[in-house]
Amino acid sequence: MTEEKYTVGIDFGTLSGRAVLVDVTNGREVASAVHDYANGVIDTQLPDSDVYLEPDWALQDPNDYLEVFKNTIPAILKRSGIDPKDVIGIGIDFTACTMLPTKADGTPLCVLPEWHENPHTWVKLWKHHAAQHEANKLNETARRLGYTFLDRYGGKISSEWFFPKAWQILDEAPEVYAAADRLIEAADWVVWQLTGIETRNSCTAGYKAMWSKSEGFPPNEFFKALDSRMENIIDQKMSREISPLGARAGGLSEEAAGWTGLLTGTAVAVANVDAHVSAPASTVTEPGRMVIIMGTSNCHMVLGPTEEHVPGMCGVVEDGIVPDLPGFEAGQSCVGDHFEWFTENCVPTSYEREAREQGINIHELLERLAAFQKPGESGLLALDWWNGNRSVLVDVDLTGLLIGATLATKPEDIYRALIEATAFGTRTIIEAFNTNGVPVNEIIATGGLPDRNKLLMQIYADVTGLCIYVAESSQAAALGSAMYGAVAAGVEAGGYENIAAAAKHMARLRDEYYQPNFENKAVYDELFVEYVTLHDYFGRGENDVMKRLKTIKAQMRTG
Amino acid sequence: MTEEKYTVGIDFGTLSGRAVLVDVTNGREVASAVHDYANGVIDTQLPDSDVYLEPDWALQDPNDYLEVFKNTIPAILKRSGIDPKDVIGIGIDFTACTMLPTKADGTPLCVLPEWHENPHTWVKLWKHHAAQHEANKLNETARRLGYTFLDRYGGKISSEWFFPKAWQILDEAPEVYAAADRLIEAADWVVWQLTGIETRNSCTAGYKAMWSKSEGFPPNEFFKALDSRMENIIDQKMSREISPLGARAGGLSEEAAGWTGLLTGTAVAVANVDAHVSAPASTVTEPGRMVIIMGTSNCHMVLGPTEEHVPGMCGVVEDGIVPDLPGFEAGQSCVGDHFEWFTENCVPTSYEREAREQGINIHELLERLAAFQKPGESGLLALDWWNGNRSVLVDVDLTGLLIGATLATKPEDIYRALIEATAFGTRTIIEAFNTNGVPVNEIIATGGLPDRNKLLMQIYADVTGLCIYVAESSQAAALGSAMYGAVAAGVEAGGYENIAAAAKHMARLRDEYYQPNFENKAVYDELFVEYVTLHDYFGRGENDVMKRLKTIKAQMRTG
Repeated sequence: MTEEKYTVGIDFGTLSGRAVLVDVTNGREVASAVHDYANGVIDTQLPDSDVYLEPDWALQDPNDYLEVFKNTIPAILKRSGIDPKDVIGIGIDFTACTMLPTKADGTPLCVLPEWHENPHTWVKLWKHHAAQHEANKLNETARRLGYTFLDRYGGKISSEWFFPKAWQILDEAPEVYAAADRLIEAADWVVWQLTGIETRNSCTAGYKAMWSKSEGFPPNEFFKALDSRMENIIDQKMSREISPLGARAGGLSEEAAGWTGLLTGTAVAVANVDAHVSAPASTVTEPGRMVIIMGTSNCHMVLGPTEEHVPGMCGVVEDGIVPDLPGFEAGQSCVGDHFEWFTENCVPTSYEREAREQGINIHELLERLAAFQKPGESGLLALDWWNGNRSVLVDVDLTGLLIGATLATKPEDIYRALIEATAFGTRTIIEAFNTNGVPVNEIIATGGLPDRNKLLMQIYADVTGLCIYVAESSQAAALGSAMYGAVAAGVEAGGYENIAAAAKHMARLRDEYYQPNFENKAVYDELFVEYVTLHDYFGRGENDVMKRLKTIKAQMRTG
Repeated sequence: MTEEKYTVGIDFGTLSGRAVLVDVTNGREVASAVHDYANGVIDTQLPDSDVYLEPDWALQDPNDYLEVFKNTIPAILKRSGIDPKDVIGIGIDFTACTMLPTKADGTPLCVLPEWHENPHTWVKLWKHHAAQHEANKLNETARRLGYTFLDRYGGKISSEWFFPKAWQILDEAPEVYAAADRLIEAADWVVWQLTGIETRNSCTAGYKAMWSKSEGFPPNEFFKALDSRMENIIDQKMSREISPLGARAGGLSEEAAGWTGLLTGTAVAVANVDAHVSAPASTVTEPGRMVIIMGTSNCHMVLGPTEEHVPGMCGVVEDGIVPDLPGFEAGQSCVGDHFEWFTENCVPTSYEREAREQGINIHELLERLAAFQKPGESGLLALDWWNGNRSVLVDVDLTGLLIGATLATKPEDIYRALIEATAFGTRTIIEAFNTNGVPVNEIIATGGLPDRNKLLMQIYADVTGLCIYVAESSQAAALGSAMYGAVAAGVEAGGYENIAAAAKHMARLRDEYYQPNFENKAVYDELFVEYVTLHDYFGRGENDVMKRLKTIKAQMRTG
């Protein structure tokens, strides 16, 4: 007989769901399992149909999410041999905003035969980019009418967010909008499926649906100004009851217990977002320490002592990352993607051959070669805007720039310059926080990049002048969800009182960390001045050449 | 018995010399032969010695030039079966400034055993770049003392030119300077070897040694201000007697007749420069039509109705291209080199494989892919400064810039943007001429690129809005030299009265030409506005980031 208790954390990603079974005492991962979504990202054709999608669409099948529960949880129970009665809680995190229309009982419209072939009834994935028109109108209307809620989001919201997506349904398929009793984040929908109880979490509500703890949602008049049919969207299709993170959404339903092999009544935490749940999993539950999830893109999260308006952030939400503190989010839209683009498009055969001979991949070869260089030695400088700029300029129409090339410029020079550019981008974000009352004193890195590129980590330390620690778990999101599962279970069941207590026991950092080399930093300080000058010249309206080139490009493509 | 007359043109390049035997009636090439210099470019170690060279040095062996005469002329005579008595003249052209110190009888110092191991006694090739220090001091002194002759050279002269190289000898090897009875262009030296008569041509004197037909050389006081030991350099080691192009330097000496198989007394023309001699070979002997030699770099030549000071040109020299007209020269230092750099450093394996499968080279593949695009469609714009900017900014410290990159940017997009950038660079030069009283109404292209890249030619036509014709001969320099050989021979011998008459009969254009597509030009006009804005922002002092990056780079390299 054991006293040990466990929780399950499930991280719903873009292509698959991952479940981990975690020891509540110490956060140790006991077992894990991954289930790939059968329909993946639906971006060309609806499954089992002749319905084709427009460009920029990205849908998912909600059944794929339920399959994650049905496959992964039994698998981790079996692999670990843990008795289900010792599993005290479940937490989940999701991509966001990923949303769907359902009937009042939670049935997704898309599973109903009469709605199956209408694309607007399916889940709109976070990277569904077809609601830009609605986002533009929303931003413009809010500004025109003098609403201030956009200030919490750097001045404008993205087409990826909740209301542009909801409004696109109304615009393009009013019959779907009318038939939808509920419009809901997939994060909240899967919790609903586990518990039979509809809840709405403060993280997605705050970061993706313009909700604030003190002000609630924008007023009905605002929605009416967008489209009179949307006036009562909150009360008709959503909810004003927003649950704080760590709250218990309910107990596992009998049906869900049947899917998973867990006991009926097992505590299920309110839903969370993959990025935000990684913060406590990286030990951060207090102000001053920034978490950066470093992968294809960078997501920066920091808790503030007070709610400040930092220009160009993605959002500030009280209760958005941990309860009772304002959580700030910023982002860089092109980091790992940048290096991937580079290796796919710009690295010559001789380098591929060299990598093969050394038995390493091309990233490792470039990293090795670039590591021989000192800062500034290549003479190159780049603006890291290959995919626009998320923070602090919030402008998708900005593009990449490389300056300083000569006939002696080598691939590793450019590779290093791209790394440095993303580090300068992060420093720009940190300086925006620091100068606006949100201190950033050290960095905790998580995500895929810290494991893959030590040079990059050192450059980030040198450029920012901050120590960078690395979260121990390579599955921070799933661990964070399991931690919230322990909080939802509560102390009596063997869990924790709050996320800070859970983090103290279940989250940890690696021993190794990256300390800034201040000789390098001195050079990077010089280069950063140049970066900022170019950043402002091209990014703040002095020379809008990037946008004009994009306009010409669009004109030439459409003929 | 035939009435046909022939001349020999010899083009001394960087690695080899090429002789052509040409029919004086119609310019038809009857035979040609190439001889590679045994010692090529000497840039690491003196031949047969333990003497190593500093970086940036580039020397040659004068004996290699004589071997060209001894090998190629007998070969073309033999191949053609032409009777030497029907060969009425010889002309030569050379790279410049390529200069050497000799004794009073023309013996190169480097062939004398006592001087053989001193690198300063060898020929300094055009791309010997170790006299930058002297060039800087010369430019600074001329400016400080208020001399105006630099105005003819865009405000400063290059380290490649005659006096920086001569001064470097004096600075670093005063004993060599003292032992040198003559300092002379290799172009003039080889003519001296053919004829036994020392002449100095107006082209190298004007473009490389600051001579002007109306003002002569800079005054002795100027040279004294540089270094008192140089005060009398012109009278002691050079000559004030400058021969116009097309003049007869002398008749072939008995010794040279022995080397070549030609008759003693055969007319030898005054020497010429490879670029400039290509102008009449491209049919240009009057104002209004610009010749562009398109190869690793671009050299632009145009004749003016009057001597104007066009800011940023490489030089204006009366008699410099053809007698009695001011010849203007401008240049772009990175054209073919640019595409070569790109294919060597930035083209992925998949493209190399594709090229192999299609049985074409990588340039051809990129050209094909880029040709599918419309102007502006890639969204990219570049500044073509990978090797600095020769005209119109005259600044070697400028560097390359690429703007507009996204994650969808492909290699062919960048390749096309680099081509377009060099076309914008040419347009900048043409506009500088046009707005300063030197009309450019059409372009004649010659050199290696016109044969290799039709897309590039069309882009140049579209960007400049000018028709581009292509010189028929693929050996324009050697043909031009042969034409000057016919002028030196004179009408009585079966040659021509002047270069215009020679050009009328001996030079021609191809039938095919490139006409601007004015729909494309309209787009390029928009892009050119953006190019000029960036050109001026980065090139005219508003943001000297390129230079600061170079300074940091130099500091980091030297430690």
